[in-house]
Amino acid sequence: MTATAQTAVVGVTGYAGAELARLLLRHPRLKSTPPVFAGRLDDKGEARGGIPLAEIHPELASSNGTGKLNLQAFSWELLGERGVEMLFLATPHEQSRAWAPEALRRGIRVIDLSGAWRLREPANRAIYGFGDEGSETAQATQAEAVYGLPELHRERIAGARLVANPGCYATSIILAVKPLVAAELIDPDHGIVCDAKSGVSGAGKAPTAKTHFMHAADNLSAYAVFTHRHTGELLEQIGVKADDIVFTPHLLPIPRGILSTIYVRFREAQRRERILAIYREFFDGSPLTRIYDKTLPQIRYSLHTGYADIGFQLSTDGRRAVIVSCLDNLLKGASSQAVQNLNLMQGWGEAEGLE
Amino acid sequence: MTATAQTAVVGVTGYAGAELARLLLRHPRLKSTPPVFAGRLDDKGEARGGIPLAEIHPELASSNGTGKLNLQAFSWELLGERGVEMLFLATPHEQSRAWAPEALRRGIRVIDLSGAWRLREPANRAIYGFGDEGSETAQATQAEAVYGLPELHRERIAGARLVANPGCYATSIILAVKPLVAAELIDPDHGIVCDAKSGVSGAGKAPTAKTHFMHAADNLSAYAVFTHRHTGELLEQIGVKADDIVFTPHLLPIPRGILSTIYVRFREAQRRERILAIYREFFDGSPLTRIYDKTLPQIRYSLHTGYADIGFQLSTDGRRAVIVSCLDNLLKGASSQAVQNLNLMQGWGEAEGLE
Amino acid sequence: MTATAQTAVVGVTGYAGAELARLLLRHPRLKSTPPVFAGRLDDKGEARGGIPLAEIHPELASSNGTGKLNLQAFSWELLGERGVEMLFLATPHEQSRAWAPEALRRGIRVIDLSGAWRLREPANRAIYGFGDEGSETAQATQAEAVYGLPELHRERIAGARLVANPGCYATSIILAVKPLVAAELIDPDHGIVCDAKSGVSGAGKAPTAKTHFMHAADNLSAYAVFTHRHTGELLEQIGVKADDIVFTPHLLPIPRGILSTIYVRFREAQRRERILAIYREFFDGSPLTRIYDKTLPQIRYSLHTGYADIGFQLSTDGRRAVIVSCLDNLLKGASSQAVQNLNLMQGWGEAEGLE
Amino acid sequence: MTATAQTAVVGVTGYAGAELARLLLRHPRLKSTPPVFAGRLDDKGEARGGIPLAEIHPELASSNGTGKLNLQAFSWELLGERGVEMLFLATPHEQSRAWAPEALRRGIRVIDLSGAWRLREPANRAIYGFGDEGSETAQATQAEAVYGLPELHRERIAGARLVANPGCYATSIILAVKPLVAAELIDPDHGIVCDAKSGVSGAGKAPTAKTHFMHAADNLSAYAVFTHRHTGELLEQIGVKADDIVFTPHLLPIPRGILSTIYVRFREAQRRERILAIYREFFDGSPLTRIYDKTLPQIRYSLHTGYADIGFQLSTDGRRAVIVSCLDNLLKGASSQAVQNLNLMQGWGEAEGLE
Repeated sequence: MTATAQTAVVGVTGYAGAELARLLLRHPRLKSTPPVFAGRLDDKGEARGGIPLAEIHPELASSNGTGKLNLQAFSWELLGERGVEMLFLATPHEQSRAWAPEALRRGIRVIDLSGAWRLREPANRAIYGFGDEGSETAQATQAEAVYGLPELHRERIAGARLVANPGCYATSIILAVKPLVAAELIDPDHGIVCDAKSGVSGAGKAPTAKTHFMHAADNLSAYAVFTHRHTGELLEQIGVKADDIVFTPHLLPIPRGILSTIYVRFREAQRRERILAIYREFFDGSPLTRIYDKTLPQIRYSLHTGYADIGFQLSTDGRRAVIVSCLDNLLKGASSQAVQNLNLMQGWGEAEGLE
Repeated sequence: MTATAQTAVVGVTGYAGAELARLLLRHPRLKSTPPVFAGRLDDKGEARGGIPLAEIHPELASSNGTGKLNLQAFSWELLGERGVEMLFLATPHEQSRAWAPEALRRGIRVIDLSGAWRLREPANRAIYGFGDEGSETAQATQAEAVYGLPELHRERIAGARLVANPGCYATSIILAVKPLVAAELIDPDHGIVCDAKSGVSGAGKAPTAKTHFMHAADNLSAYAVFTHRHTGELLEQIGVKADDIVFTPHLLPIPRGILSTIYVRFREAQRRERILAIYREFFDGSPLTRIYDKTLPQIRYSLHTGYADIGFQLSTDGRRAVIVSCLDNLLKGASSQAVQNLNLMQGWGEAEGLE
Repeated sequence: MTATAQTAVVGVTGYAGAELARLLLRHPRLKSTPPVFAGRLDDKGEARGGIPLAEIHPELASSNGTGKLNLQAFSWELLGERGVEMLFLATPHEQSRAWAPEALRRGIRVIDLSGAWRLREPANRAIYGFGDEGSETAQATQAEAVYGLPELHRERIAGARLVANPGCYATSIILAVKPLVAAELIDPDHGIVCDAKSGVSGAGKAPTAKTHFMHAADNLSAYAVFTHRHTGELLEQIGVKADDIVFTPHLLPIPRGILSTIYVRFREAQRRERILAIYREFFDGSPLTRIYDKTLPQIRYSLHTGYADIGFQLSTDGRRAVIVSCLDNLLKGASSQAVQNLNLMQGWGEAEGLE
Repeated sequence: MTATAQTAVVGVTGYAGAELARLLLRHPRLKSTPPVFAGRLDDKGEARGGIPLAEIHPELASSNGTGKLNLQAFSWELLGERGVEMLFLATPHEQSRAWAPEALRRGIRVIDLSGAWRLREPANRAIYGFGDEGSETAQATQAEAVYGLPELHRERIAGARLVANPGCYATSIILAVKPLVAAELIDPDHGIVCDAKSGVSGAGKAPTAKTHFMHAADNLSAYAVFTHRHTGELLEQIGVKADDIVFTPHLLPIPRGILSTIYVRFREAQRRERILAIYREFFDGSPLTRIYDKTLPQIRYSLHTGYADIGFQLSTDGRRAVIVSCLDNLLKGASSQAVQNLNLMQGWGEAEGLE
């Protein structure tokens, strides 16, 4: 355990990157060592020697401006000079495939927020179509990547050199389902149905027909039915066969937040207290999950927090449950989970800077 | 078949009532016989001899005001004097239980938009807790009520004296599932999962904690899990056992629209073309359903229209389908369906005034 | 006056174009002569001989598909073959500058929804930077263009060959201010302040940083302060000096609708009844304006209608007024106003197909 | 200056109260002394000895529940036992009129978030219709109340026993206008026009027709034209005559945030740099205002922050300016400003716990 750590962030211009910057800038362990923000600059940005973070994200500006908080031109030399120990990659998948091995080679530990390193099975990764699947470096890197869901892999994350931060939908669903699967309650023959809904920030910052206000507002639409890339994470982390689970994402007309409604059938009739006890035991020692007892979670309860919220309702015969799982896709679904991983990798309190 | 009909509306102050008024006022068969709007007036309204509709719903005002379009004090005498033949009740359940029999007694046919007369089985009705279940009149009235879903009961509606206009969620789900159940494709052992999402107008006009902007906006919440009152309509109209279907409604942060995502498993693998053919055959002759071939419906496509929109996606093995069903809860889920029923009861074109 | 007319629409893919299509397809005079929809097709569209309108705008689909309603490849020959008499241009400014003269040359009357021909004064047009200002054809075309605000220029529109449909903000403000300026009530020395707010559809269909859901939602922003292109329309149509009026547009987090709040000071104290009388007299014979007497207009009252709604509040000393003006920017601010102009140009009832 | 202070909050169930609780619970000076939350309990709450804060505001729950953070039954004895030194009143105006004097009598300093004590002039207070205007206690209490806008009254707040936390609209407008009035730049003859827009949380938690989702969503409406209660604050704090300023609030379809667009005319032409310098000098030493140089503020930049954001645009002749002022109405417009006042009254850093 160290008092502090020099971090760097690549990809601060996106939505998750902005939240990550906000969290790191107020993290109690990082007060004396603000992160290095690095990326590709245009000519004007280069000429100015960097772009003030407050210009990119005015909401992050302080009263006195943000002189030293510049987005700088990325180079491995810059990271070396600044003594960066921990690198956050909030970058496109392909870029993370290329950069993570190089960072490891230079002795820098990596928390990658993309989908580049999350999937063990080549078959599950196929949907990404990575060009480097045949490379030995990529295979070796993949082999040491740890899936960064602290509630499942806390100890392995602590010692990892490369942590693959989970997908937002995957986090929401795995945390709700895994405890019941682990307790062998669920009858997989009847299938696990995961109907998930996400705010528009999950679709990224690029202006597209899908992210146009006129498409998203006053609307709801299902997409990527049977084909969403987070499905592989569900299979590998929950430990079910592809035929046993179906996952449908929807685009909600709100900026942020995910709610997943999950339908399961039990092998035997269950009582509410037993299910509650299973969840509580599973998440014992997990500071960033909240189990709802009397009510169900709603998206707004989890917004702007680092929590995953889980609640459920049993059918009167105790044979079925509807589970509701909520989180802020930019926080527990991305940035605060990355900070949670940072905390574990540094030996700090898991929830430091997040409550 | 008659050229026109004298209609009356009770309950024009609500959201469905306003849409119903709008539709009736522009209906080509009713140009010469505008509906009578009647309800309970306060003292001031009584003293003025009625309240201009444009004061209640400014969006309905014409340029020259709406002199003759007053909300008048309700009395059976008024309906008699005006020669009302068709009565729309957009009233609370209990009021519809009391008023429909009286209207029938007076020779007035009724289209009831409440849940009062939709359910044949006393067990399914129990959730409403009607106080008149023991009454002979109520039983006789119930016996002749026809469930007002034209796509299923077109012919019986035409001759009915009392039509029970379906629930909004129920319309959305029944139209999507019934064709596949009727074709005996679905394996009920695996359950039919109906995950439905509705805009806030479905929760009614009364200001409550649930309809407060601060609760609904930027949020999503599940409610009435395993206990929603529309479940009985699903059981009776689709023809499945309670154990074979689960239905969860959610409150969407939008004014209007319903999207239902429905998960089914087939007895045998199916091809896309077969499913399309089944839907098309089932809805042959139904002018107010649209089957989507290449894409999935979205809420915004159905808003401000009288259509129910249905599309689906098959799993690669053809054993599962995700069906998406959309409609405008105030129109096909309430008012335009009521006009569709009016058209059938009068022998007019089913879609007159609705396209 | 003719029973019907053959129309054509270029630019049906945009938001105003979609509303225009909807209005024309249900216009009672055009039942037997649906409009020709023409535009630039991609290769695939060319090969198919056109693109079904229902593919572009699923909300416009009918139950039976829309076989004959194709978007066809534009050519002047096509318009000739189809006998097009009236051409709607919902096209970019530059395209309207080029196409309107050609249409006139071919004997086709034009209703142009762009900003190409709205401004008489070269100084006011300068902000558009048209490349053809020196051309004789452009000057001659401009000279015969009539500003298509029926409430001001009803008679000239009727005989016009080229009608320049007004800007959405301009319509909202001119209708609210012109009657009081014409009555010489306003003291221009104190300035007319126009604070206007528009839904996102006003920013067009192109996905941009500004139209991204994450920018517009849960937000409000002012833009084009002192520099908006509709300012010239205010000056020319209201008849005030640039120094006497200030206009600030804002981007509202809603799909459609404009509300303008307008601040004026009177030369002398006024009574409410006098102001009401002035508005009523000015709009006598105008079927698509509504003057509010007891309350103020709100955006939602005007949505999905062809009305401009105007109300006001006087200060207790009668020296100041706050005027509130609302309309649907895609209808009275664009498409329904275009149909209103069509009606006038054809000698039909001004509000036919619009109430 | 003291290391910590025992605080209490009355009114934690409202929106501003929830934000206040959140801020106080994470305030670095209050870690060891969490606030006392007190209010009126129902019988069930009384019987349980209080209601967990996490039940009232689930978003405030921690992973381990919030055992000790109960809303307790209010009594002056409770405050005495707990040694409360600072009392936050997030209560209705009338309750604050009654309770503030009693707290002062008991030696407890008060920060009142209501409108009870903000206005010096009886004429300006008249709109509230307080029943105790004749009381000597009320007059004496009013006499020592300090208007709690730190940027104007930092020093008097530090020593005050009763601080009247400003209105949300008033904060937004005063901070934008006062620097220019103080520098004697503005020509009052032309009037200062303040067009302000607020999210729905400003309308309070009570479910009403106005706060119903269906009223607020997809809408914009002006209200309280010429009659809003914050007007008195503008007059007293900016120091202008009633005739020189007009203020119109609007209800935005968003949960939180205020944007005020303010129109002023200068005595003489101004240059941008001079205006910038005036703002910067005025707010020198103010850690919670941000002056925008190159762009204009937008609501979303200030959301979930304690900042007031101010920017402006000059007309080309330098004689007019449009000023845009944004803040989060629940924070700088209410709760974070209350904490700012707490910090000043305790001699702590003005922005502690707020950046």
